[in-house]
Amino acid sequence: MLLDDTHDPHLRSWVSSANEAGTDFPLQNLPLGVFETPDGGARAGVAIGDRILDLRACDQAGLFTGSLSDVGVACREARLNALIALGRPALRMLRQQLSGWLREVAIRSRVEPALVPQSGAIMRLPVQIGDYTDFYASLYHATNVGSMFRPDEPLLPNYKHVPIAYHGRTSSIVISGTPIARPSGQTRPDGYSEPVFGPSRRLDFELELGVLVGTGNDLSVPIPIDRAEEHVAGVCLVNDWSARDIQQWEYQPLGPFLSKSFATTISPWMVTLDALEPFRCAPMKRPEGDPDPLAYLVASSAEAARALDVRLEVALASERMRQERQPALVLARSSTRHLYWTVGQMIAHHTSNGCNVRTGDLLASGTVSGPTRDSRGCLLELTWRGTQPLALPTGEKRAFLEDGDEVVFRGRCEKDGFVGIGLGECRGRVMPAGSAAGGA
Amino acid sequence: MLLDDTHDPHLRSWVSSANEAGTDFPLQNLPLGVFETPDGGARAGVAIGDRILDLRACDQAGLFTGSLSDVGVACREARLNALIALGRPALRMLRQQLSGWLREVAIRSRVEPALVPQSGAIMRLPVQIGDYTDFYASLYHATNVGSMFRPDEPLLPNYKHVPIAYHGRTSSIVISGTPIARPSGQTRPDGYSEPVFGPSRRLDFELELGVLVGTGNDLSVPIPIDRAEEHVAGVCLVNDWSARDIQQWEYQPLGPFLSKSFATTISPWMVTLDALEPFRCAPMKRPEGDPDPLAYLVASSAEAARALDVRLEVALASERMRQERQPALVLARSSTRHLYWTVGQMIAHHTSNGCNVRTGDLLASGTVSGPTRDSRGCLLELTWRGTQPLALPTGEKRAFLEDGDEVVFRGRCEKDGFVGIGLGECRGRVMPAGSAAGGA
Repeated sequence: MLLDDTHDPHLRSWVSSANEAGTDFPLQNLPLGVFETPDGGARAGVAIGDRILDLRACDQAGLFTGSLSDVGVACREARLNALIALGRPALRMLRQQLSGWLREVAIRSRVEPALVPQSGAIMRLPVQIGDYTDFYASLYHATNVGSMFRPDEPLLPNYKHVPIAYHGRTSSIVISGTPIARPSGQTRPDGYSEPVFGPSRRLDFELELGVLVGTGNDLSVPIPIDRAEEHVAGVCLVNDWSARDIQQWEYQPLGPFLSKSFATTISPWMVTLDALEPFRCAPMKRPEGDPDPLAYLVASSAEAARALDVRLEVALASERMRQERQPALVLARSSTRHLYWTVGQMIAHHTSNGCNVRTGDLLASGTVSGPTRDSRGCLLELTWRGTQPLALPTGEKRAFLEDGDEVVFRGRCEKDGFVGIGLGECRGRVMPAGSAAGGA
Repeated sequence: MLLDDTHDPHLRSWVSSANEAGTDFPLQNLPLGVFETPDGGARAGVAIGDRILDLRACDQAGLFTGSLSDVGVACREARLNALIALGRPALRMLRQQLSGWLREVAIRSRVEPALVPQSGAIMRLPVQIGDYTDFYASLYHATNVGSMFRPDEPLLPNYKHVPIAYHGRTSSIVISGTPIARPSGQTRPDGYSEPVFGPSRRLDFELELGVLVGTGNDLSVPIPIDRAEEHVAGVCLVNDWSARDIQQWEYQPLGPFLSKSFATTISPWMVTLDALEPFRCAPMKRPEGDPDPLAYLVASSAEAARALDVRLEVALASERMRQERQPALVLARSSTRHLYWTVGQMIAHHTSNGCNVRTGDLLASGTVSGPTRDSRGCLLELTWRGTQPLALPTGEKRAFLEDGDEVVFRGRCEKDGFVGIGLGECRGRVMPAGSAAGGA
């Protein structure tokens, strides 16, 4: 284990909200993000309880000294790219420093002026994303979706050998809270011989974990699996909104395109890999008879082979539920420990052909479905292609998303003997087709 | 027609090489690019004959005045993004100004110091590319490839309705001349039940036209087809290098990924849409019985429905051919007038779901194959999946690319009554697997 004193469950912060049971942002978390307030532009910050520690203000107060001076310079940027490009050792050093500042009473008077209430801040995209890659790493998701579209052959022959992925759209990645306009597109409804153009009738969410690249590799120089996690800065939540009817008509032979590119929502706080250290777990046990992965996908140590146990949930609130003051209904709970491929395998595969990843690149897991019915990470699976609609507490039914529906993802890590940490939330409300609602 | 005096075939430049027959860069072209010399960083320039007009130097010399002052400021950047973001009217104004400077003897003494020989400059990527989209717009290419893999159903039912495309990899886009390391990857050779990992044995080129976006659209606000070309800055050549054996094993169900993401080469000079004005043509006539496109893909004027007649060729020189001083062998000649979908249709489709395009985005056409055997734009088609190898003048055979092979694309526009213009060249040499050859 690679734990240090920052993971000590007995540590308490002088920021009292950070010590409350169940907070996503205790002293043991310290996720990084970019926020904006009316009196200052976008800048880097750290979530602590219900506050944000303004890292630019820390730099201006001269708090980054000695070996942290590079970190201070990087925190002057309006995105986290320069900071995470410093690499994992620098992020770990920053984490240790932040943990000290936020618990030691002696320094409180110098640090406290840099705290901002989260309620008064607007979160922005944490990084400038160069490329966005979406994997398909849940065997359960791939099997469920495959059995709907290809009952005779739910899993294609490549699935258990290849960490399947496709390139997603970067321009339409938006921050949690951005309204999502229902996309229009070509579909060929059942029984039609010709396609029609109009608003999607099968709008869906996909519950995913995002991985943000800290340091990249040079073109033509693959990243070996044993070193893959050195290149990871942290994780966030991803909602890969999907128009299933558009997808079904367009996706062959080159994969999903407009069915996904209208919007992808990410959560604002990047939880670092160091914060996740206590919540690592063994990779999913491959079902009996599954082939061994090829050598480039096999880590040489148990440490490099580890998976992540990030518990994910998706909740939905319709417009009527909000009017009736009903809480959002949890539709599914899952965990990234159910993924067939680890983050290390994804990165080793992605770069195995020499492809370069860059600081700020986003890799998403694909829908994180688990083995049970209530751990399916999208409506396509939860309602079995719309044939088994879900009942909402208002009496409404949901086969796919309706206008006004708000979808909220949450992520949390818990383990006995440790303080649980959270990823915050990833939220988006569906607006009617034609509403120009977007914008990062 | 939207011709102006810059297209006048009688114009001659005081740069004598610009008046030579067959030059790619006469006074009627004026393509934009980014170059670097030992005595100065990357900066914007215009190709004229065998020279480059240094636009930063023009700005420093105070040549951009009045309504061109924004252009002068934008030319201080190391990429063309700021310049092309000014929009087509600004690019047209710049073109008219450049045409005047380079032909009027009165101003020659002020402009000439800003000329740099192309032979002394290194070309860089012209723009920072946010997203790269690759279409599949040649019916001939789609039919040929489809008939190899699905003899019973060469064209899928969506092809004649949907301008099929997928997201490509941005990080590995490199400038012409960058060596291309042969990628390794998973393949399942014929007769094998399990995949193997190793260097691709079916490396291919794809002859494509690239379109660079000048001005983008807001998220959730589609670009109507009649206004699509307002958003285009210009075109270049694209080699979408492809590992066919990796592609065949990985591409289902989410499309090509590592088979394409190891490298994509673009040519350095962006030929503006204004320069292409004389070379517009009617769109490809749809074969008898083909469905009409849906309304959002139908332009309301003949002008907005036009295609481009850019003539493309691909030539190959093996290492032995170079040793024997044989010229590169032209393998195929085609034209973008053979594309089933126009640039306007691509942009209207791409944004029809609300997806935003941004300044500097690259849209590529897909392999530009024509109707004849000698107009096929990739080896997969030219050698019919390797079953009909090509003979080189040295007696060598080529089913797919070998190490040391250099592939050169050229593009040209010709029309009676006009001075022909060229796109320059897009060149790349294949290096052995494992050579860390890349880098933009």
